[in-house]
Amino acid sequence: MKDFNVAILGCGTVGGGVAKIMLEMSEQLSGSSTRRIHLSKIVELSASEAVERFEIPAHIFCGGGKDLSKEEANRYIEEILQDKNIDLVVETIGGSNDFVENLAISVCHAGKHLVTANKALLAERGVSIFEAAKINKVSLGYEAAVCGAIPVIKTIKESFTGDQIESISGILNGTSNYILTMMQHEGMDFHEALKLAQENGYAEADPTLDIDGGDAAHKLILLIRLAFGVNITMEELARMGIQNIKKEDIEFASEINAKIKLICFAQKLDGKIYATVCPMMVKNSNFLAEVSGATNAVRFLNKYSGRHILIGAGAGSLETASSIVADIVFAARYADRALHEEKEKVAKLQFTDARHFKFPYIITFETEDIPGITGLTTTCIGKQKINIDTVSHNRHEKDRAIFSIVTMPCTLRQVEDAILEVKEKNPSVLLSEPKVIPILY
Amino acid sequence: MKDFNVAILGCGTVGGGVAKIMLEMSEQLSGSSTRRIHLSKIVELSASEAVERFEIPAHIFCGGGKDLSKEEANRYIEEILQDKNIDLVVETIGGSNDFVENLAISVCHAGKHLVTANKALLAERGVSIFEAAKINKVSLGYEAAVCGAIPVIKTIKESFTGDQIESISGILNGTSNYILTMMQHEGMDFHEALKLAQENGYAEADPTLDIDGGDAAHKLILLIRLAFGVNITMEELARMGIQNIKKEDIEFASEINAKIKLICFAQKLDGKIYATVCPMMVKNSNFLAEVSGATNAVRFLNKYSGRHILIGAGAGSLETASSIVADIVFAARYADRALHEEKEKVAKLQFTDARHFKFPYIITFETEDIPGITGLTTTCIGKQKINIDTVSHNRHEKDRAIFSIVTMPCTLRQVEDAILEVKEKNPSVLLSEPKVIPILY
Repeated sequence: MKDFNVAILGCGTVGGGVAKIMLEMSEQLSGSSTRRIHLSKIVELSASEAVERFEIPAHIFCGGGKDLSKEEANRYIEEILQDKNIDLVVETIGGSNDFVENLAISVCHAGKHLVTANKALLAERGVSIFEAAKINKVSLGYEAAVCGAIPVIKTIKESFTGDQIESISGILNGTSNYILTMMQHEGMDFHEALKLAQENGYAEADPTLDIDGGDAAHKLILLIRLAFGVNITMEELARMGIQNIKKEDIEFASEINAKIKLICFAQKLDGKIYATVCPMMVKNSNFLAEVSGATNAVRFLNKYSGRHILIGAGAGSLETASSIVADIVFAARYADRALHEEKEKVAKLQFTDARHFKFPYIITFETEDIPGITGLTTTCIGKQKINIDTVSHNRHEKDRAIFSIVTMPCTLRQVEDAILEVKEKNPSVLLSEPKVIPILY
Repeated sequence: MKDFNVAILGCGTVGGGVAKIMLEMSEQLSGSSTRRIHLSKIVELSASEAVERFEIPAHIFCGGGKDLSKEEANRYIEEILQDKNIDLVVETIGGSNDFVENLAISVCHAGKHLVTANKALLAERGVSIFEAAKINKVSLGYEAAVCGAIPVIKTIKESFTGDQIESISGILNGTSNYILTMMQHEGMDFHEALKLAQENGYAEADPTLDIDGGDAAHKLILLIRLAFGVNITMEELARMGIQNIKKEDIEFASEINAKIKLICFAQKLDGKIYATVCPMMVKNSNFLAEVSGATNAVRFLNKYSGRHILIGAGAGSLETASSIVADIVFAARYADRALHEEKEKVAKLQFTDARHFKFPYIITFETEDIPGITGLTTTCIGKQKINIDTVSHNRHEKDRAIFSIVTMPCTLRQVEDAILEVKEKNPSVLLSEPKVIPILY
């Protein structure tokens, strides 16, 4: 039996998990394809730490387990790229920069299969890397880049081939979901919940990418590319984070039997793709409302098979690593087959501004507490031909009132125009910018 | 581009759905692999009805769309088996009998790939068919046989290869789940709910296999075979249906924040596999409790990646057909690769009597309404070294009392021994056989 040799570049949280699983499961992995999957080499700057943390034999590390300088590491990486015996490279260095992009492309040009968990790299600089994989007829596995352990990439690639995906909605960022869950369950405000998330290791010291929807957007871009064949950039994707979610929003959500979640949403409609990342009020009848804590979930609506929901761990060392190992096995099994996956999609779809897409919305107004405000706001909304579903109980606090209006499906543009008219009619009445949150059924 | 020719045998609800999707998606399917997937031939006795129902061009049917006698159909099937141009056969005739078993084996011997939705056939007679596929190096796709549209087979085969499944629990039968949901939501008794299920097309005129757990057991046998490499028979698998679930059981479930579901359960423990199909009280904190109506769901606990849940349509014409088409695409993409899937598992696991497996149980007693009964039952339970969690409120009705006892994890054998002692101590006190239901957290 011929060996299928794997090199891991970067042996931190995820790369170390890959090495650990490959060593523990070596017997099963040998029997999982016609080639004997073998962990050959690891390159890691802090090798001595990785040896200890993941209990990996030092001899697997280039340099024998000693810490490496950047120059040494680069030299070992170059050796691996030249090594005809290495079949597949796992990139778990992370980061979206020229170095990692060039590395990924070089792996492909060297004729080696590439597996990565690097969502930022693929979302921001993926076009060149997918192209390099295609030209060199190597496989590019990135199951671990979207929702950690949840096999969402392979489900789209290999299981929805007898169907057409019509919409995707998902909770793709565990940190923000943990924060929202704490606000919901424990009555915390955003900053308390964020602090707790940091203390419990669910959020980084700099949590920007998690709470501003950037990380979730990276994943949604990859899902849209795969499901609809459309390449979009971070700039094109409408995005809002959870920084401005307040206790009262959580309460308004409860009033309409919903929970606030940071939702990644994409839908195909009339040959166009609409997509957004933003907090939504998810109705309790939708499974996504029940997904709490750091768990991730993706919901598909397909043309023939209807609704699918996948729930699982979105992050974690071994959780993410298990997806990488599955990609390695898949490559060992099938990668010398012609690569169908990079074919052009039959129907070219256009990506379109989410502001023209119809959602039901909940609009929360903070106003002066004077008579006539409900009349003013509902009149302006009505003039934009938006049907109103319900108007909430008005909360009076000192001189201000807070109330929310639930609309029937309409575009964000209509809502914005209605708010503009409220401002024009009575420039001083709004005490803050009204909050507009889509409702997901 | 070379054609990949498909023949469908049996064009009823599922086979017709396959033909419909293949025709509607023909362009996408052409681009989905290096071979052009093509629906070549259909054999169906009631061809004229199928032509109309699924809007399939008559010329695709052997016999040009005219109804066939059994002899004619068999002759056409024989032609297909001899036809070197046919690459894959879809068996959607159904039934677990000698004819279909021999047909499936003949397809493999003819060197053609086989795709089937026939869970009964594979669960009851699968050993010979899996063996025939292995010997002849053809692929055997059966995604549609377990949970219709949910890609559970491919998830185990291709996505959990970097992990080890430790337990499976699932709602694998939509009919029984629909009935239990109606009992739960609408307060119906079993017979009313069954009648409604039949009226709404969720249950057959003869619903035996759905309500006695037989259909669910077929699917669990296939999952156990795939996940743990153990072949078990219907006779070996402990099984109980939902026929005896009463309104009061639903109420007791609510009391402990749970819902009654027909659960397929299998767990690996100390190198042995424990499995059962039976109604369980599923705690509301478990996602399976929220799966209502005819929906199916499977929950995995894996060694490295933790909890996974897949939810989707468990039945339906196009839903099931979409899984079959995905299996066709997978075969067209990869099937000339060496077939890893039928390799022997590294660790041979033993299948063991579920009576020795520890669950928490809820035991419901219907007794004479006389003092001392709670003392008698709890004493007998304590003597079997079973720890009691809670004793429910005692419901008095005329001369009888109904109450339930929730235990800490113990074996079914311990429970049975406790009940035996109650009977011995006071032979007349029990008005019916106590109901013993596992609790799933």
